[in-house]
Amino acid sequence: MEINGVTIDDTYAEAFPTWVCRIIITAVTKEWAMKAATEATGFATSAIGCPCEAGIEGSVPAGQTPDGRPGVAILICASKKKLKEQVVERLAECVLTSPTTAVFNGITTAEEKIPVKLHFFGDGYEYQKEVGGRKCWVIPIMEGEYIGEEEFGIVKGVAGGNFFIMGENQMAALVGAEAAIEAIDAVPGVITSFPGGVVASGSKVGSLKYKFMPASTNEKYCPTLREKVPDTKIPAGIKAVYEIVIDGVDEKSVAAAMAAGIKAAVNVPGVKFISAGNFGGTLGPYKIDLHKVL
Amino acid sequence: MEINGVTIDDTYAEAFPTWVCRIIITAVTKEWAMKAATEATGFATSAIGCPCEAGIEGSVPAGQTPDGRPGVAILICASKKKLKEQVVERLAECVLTSPTTAVFNGITTAEEKIPVKLHFFGDGYEYQKEVGGRKCWVIPIMEGEYIGEEEFGIVKGVAGGNFFIMGENQMAALVGAEAAIEAIDAVPGVITSFPGGVVASGSKVGSLKYKFMPASTNEKYCPTLREKVPDTKIPAGIKAVYEIVIDGVDEKSVAAAMAAGIKAAVNVPGVKFISAGNFGGTLGPYKIDLHKVL
Amino acid sequence: MEINGVTIDDTYAEAFPTWVCRIIITAVTKEWAMKAATEATGFATSAIGCPCEAGIEGSVPAGQTPDGRPGVAILICASKKKLKEQVVERLAECVLTSPTTAVFNGITTAEEKIPVKLHFFGDGYEYQKEVGGRKCWVIPIMEGEYIGEEEFGIVKGVAGGNFFIMGENQMAALVGAEAAIEAIDAVPGVITSFPGGVVASGSKVGSLKYKFMPASTNEKYCPTLREKVPDTKIPAGIKAVYEIVIDGVDEKSVAAAMAAGIKAAVNVPGVKFISAGNFGGTLGPYKIDLHKVL
Amino acid sequence: MEINGVTIDDTYAEAFPTWVCRIIITAVTKEWAMKAATEATGFATSAIGCPCEAGIEGSVPAGQTPDGRPGVAILICASKKKLKEQVVERLAECVLTSPTTAVFNGITTAEEKIPVKLHFFGDGYEYQKEVGGRKCWVIPIMEGEYIGEEEFGIVKGVAGGNFFIMGENQMAALVGAEAAIEAIDAVPGVITSFPGGVVASGSKVGSLKYKFMPASTNEKYCPTLREKVPDTKIPAGIKAVYEIVIDGVDEKSVAAAMAAGIKAAVNVPGVKFISAGNFGGTLGPYKIDLHKVL
Repeated sequence: MEINGVTIDDTYAEAFPTWVCRIIITAVTKEWAMKAATEATGFATSAIGCPCEAGIEGSVPAGQTPDGRPGVAILICASKKKLKEQVVERLAECVLTSPTTAVFNGITTAEEKIPVKLHFFGDGYEYQKEVGGRKCWVIPIMEGEYIGEEEFGIVKGVAGGNFFIMGENQMAALVGAEAAIEAIDAVPGVITSFPGGVVASGSKVGSLKYKFMPASTNEKYCPTLREKVPDTKIPAGIKAVYEIVIDGVDEKSVAAAMAAGIKAAVNVPGVKFISAGNFGGTLGPYKIDLHKVL
Repeated sequence: MEINGVTIDDTYAEAFPTWVCRIIITAVTKEWAMKAATEATGFATSAIGCPCEAGIEGSVPAGQTPDGRPGVAILICASKKKLKEQVVERLAECVLTSPTTAVFNGITTAEEKIPVKLHFFGDGYEYQKEVGGRKCWVIPIMEGEYIGEEEFGIVKGVAGGNFFIMGENQMAALVGAEAAIEAIDAVPGVITSFPGGVVASGSKVGSLKYKFMPASTNEKYCPTLREKVPDTKIPAGIKAVYEIVIDGVDEKSVAAAMAAGIKAAVNVPGVKFISAGNFGGTLGPYKIDLHKVL
Repeated sequence: MEINGVTIDDTYAEAFPTWVCRIIITAVTKEWAMKAATEATGFATSAIGCPCEAGIEGSVPAGQTPDGRPGVAILICASKKKLKEQVVERLAECVLTSPTTAVFNGITTAEEKIPVKLHFFGDGYEYQKEVGGRKCWVIPIMEGEYIGEEEFGIVKGVAGGNFFIMGENQMAALVGAEAAIEAIDAVPGVITSFPGGVVASGSKVGSLKYKFMPASTNEKYCPTLREKVPDTKIPAGIKAVYEIVIDGVDEKSVAAAMAAGIKAAVNVPGVKFISAGNFGGTLGPYKIDLHKVL
Repeated sequence: MEINGVTIDDTYAEAFPTWVCRIIITAVTKEWAMKAATEATGFATSAIGCPCEAGIEGSVPAGQTPDGRPGVAILICASKKKLKEQVVERLAECVLTSPTTAVFNGITTAEEKIPVKLHFFGDGYEYQKEVGGRKCWVIPIMEGEYIGEEEFGIVKGVAGGNFFIMGENQMAALVGAEAAIEAIDAVPGVITSFPGGVVASGSKVGSLKYKFMPASTNEKYCPTLREKVPDTKIPAGIKAVYEIVIDGVDEKSVAAAMAAGIKAAVNVPGVKFISAGNFGGTLGPYKIDLHKVL
């Protein structure tokens, strides 16, 4: 299959279940909501070495938030136990501390909920108040009053949706990845948790040489090792590969993000080949086929 | 003492020792170096609930980095044991994964060093190379090759330098805080680890009412509690307080940042009073006097 | 009328007809489209002293542009004669020169069109090509090939829609104006041509003292002159006023932008009063009533 | 000559005299100063079709501006007559109108000065005041009071310093141009007036085919015409060329900017060749040799 002269590999992304929590952060301006959201979703690229995976889903216009102020939606993804701990810590340390922020539950229809009892921070001066139909706690703080909900819905989502952007050189592949991320930003229900949304160093599980390593470089996808690795997956003429990894609230959202990202990447001159990462279908229950989503 | 009509309280900031590591992240453009730096220093506002305190110290011009590319310097602050673990994880997950990045030791004169052996990720394909006089490892990855030093100097620095910006209303205090952070950005050797550099909800140690809380709202500095708290520290006419918290490589840098931030804040109309936080001098060895630094 | 405790004056904005041209600028990334759009709409705040009024209407997602790349829509507003000259010059100097850009007609249904014959720049090497159903010219240039349509629809729109944000101090009014502009950014069909979208120095026609001045400060709306000007329009307790000026493709869009901006501004603490500017209805054919639009 | 494997052509940039005015714009935050500066320097890429050439020279730290607030320095370049008109209009329409701005003369040592009598806008309510040793006018406006100097030094500077970045494909050349602009941003005394600092469509004087065109595509530097133009200047393997055009206060600054930009560009993978534009030395008095500046 070809789009705009770029070959789309006949393969699929293998993805995994994860628990996902969506939090709406509002503030006096979108800029301040974004600063809180950025801090709260940092150090959260990969569950391998970070305490969770997290990212900014997108802006929520002022007219659509419970308090009528500009908002930013973030997704935090982890196992159920870690998710609770991380939502509590990230809201307490990175959002309650941030100027003018309020937080609201972003999945009101979820059957399961995480309690986040920040109101104890009020040391007895806190009180309850309804904001936009939501039961909130108000906590007196230095800037005035913090307002927030304390129950956040969680759903079973999908982690590890992905595709590979391969270029005739590194800069072509990199700008291709940038264009892909810009397109994915407009898709609801997903995040790309890596820096700038892009992975430069995709990994394989374990290591052939160093048994203590849980993950190591995926030599089959390393362009500089093309001549040294017999079963290389690097097509002729490819000099760089970037991986886009997508987590989302459901398989449909992740598939939509993959489609949007691929369609954007193939418009960048020098992008030559699109593929995806899987483990032969042995590990993850989700198999998202590139040709089908496009 | 008054500057520009704003009262500077006759008090001091009480600060604490911490271990500090500086890492220079370079990339093909400053924008990509900044994206990696932002992810690597996220979820790192306060040692109370985050695994470390971290932030962006500033840009390093291309001419001054070991590989001649644009750079960003970050500081990571923690106890010595946590620092090692956090530098390893944050470089492995947030910088090695980020497009076109390289990392270099930012304190070459330090007596103590943290080893960060990322090269095992190369699974045997890695090799050594000198870059700008630095001994680096080269790891084949999907985008091509990652390059980085693997020893990072650490020094005993200062955490918790601070000052309070008090305003006749919230927006005056908030823009005052923004102006302060912009000025501090230009001071070398320091970071402001909170979102956008600003703390909206300064805390006291422990809680009067909830014994299980390690920290709670500092009711003496809460404007809405001014009439309810007998020993309030809120001057008449003050409606909002923001705290700027500064970590740095030494006391001198932290004091310089406090001075720069205060001088900037007092230029903002509606900022009325500057103070600082301390524990009566009983906890921290550093006492940074507001009048002396100005 | 009050919203969120803020008084909405019982008055209207008086607006004028103008000719409007919409151009879609696409590029390899949204960032590059935005750079071209910013340059092309600069020095275009007010028809009084600038050659036209222009601004960024908003982003156009990759899936909705003729060439499938990320886009930015700009509006250029002027009299019909000036409009033609300005569209030609701004596209020739600020978009054709900008990396990877293409331009497309943004009002395909317009009855009138401006011809912009950039293809002569090709010096005979240019040729025609269809892109996304649009008849385009391709011009060989240093970076490769520039592609663009050469006919741009124009419609009779509305200039000078406006409202005033009044605050208890300057920073409250300023952040109120920022919040208003963020909200207006999401409304299609409009621009706010002043720097950051905000006017700090609204004017009256002519001058009482200096007969050679076509416009001068509107002393009735100057807070520092409140005690000196008998017919001041500054309510008690107001220390700063910002004007938001809106141009759009029709009255409905301008009214929607006014409503969105006002609703956002009244959420900012310290904003106290909303009004609008008119000339008693003697000059402009459009009278956009604040109470009606809200 | 080669740097980092990239060939530096043995040629020179031919540049021209221009008059240059530097204005320091300050505001309550750097962000607001930057918004005013961006508007005031827009539609100012090339003297061929724009009323002047203008751009942002760089930030001025709060401690170094007359009013102690964060500043941005802009340069406006034109013939002496046009310069006066453009400085007046751009300050009146794009800076006086912008929130919280003040303006100061950025070349206090200049022998010649442009008068910019904005104070007539005050309609008699204006008054004089000294700020940081500068004689300023204060004008009552809606947001409060505007403050600014009204005489701006001008000097004979240099326009049209330039170099060409050639890449093995378009994205390599484009990121090379981005890196060059980032490096030039740190050089004092210069601007790059094109969108994002980069020219995608360099021109030759006049046209071979269309006699009414003052400038047309420089076919010798068009990669897609390489096989059709006998005297092409495109080396084998080059697929894209970007030109960086630099204006500055003197030849030394322009040469320093060229050196910084070239050194940055050659670090970007896929950049292959650096050259510069001249007219055989027949037109401009300045000949800035690439090998000499490096």
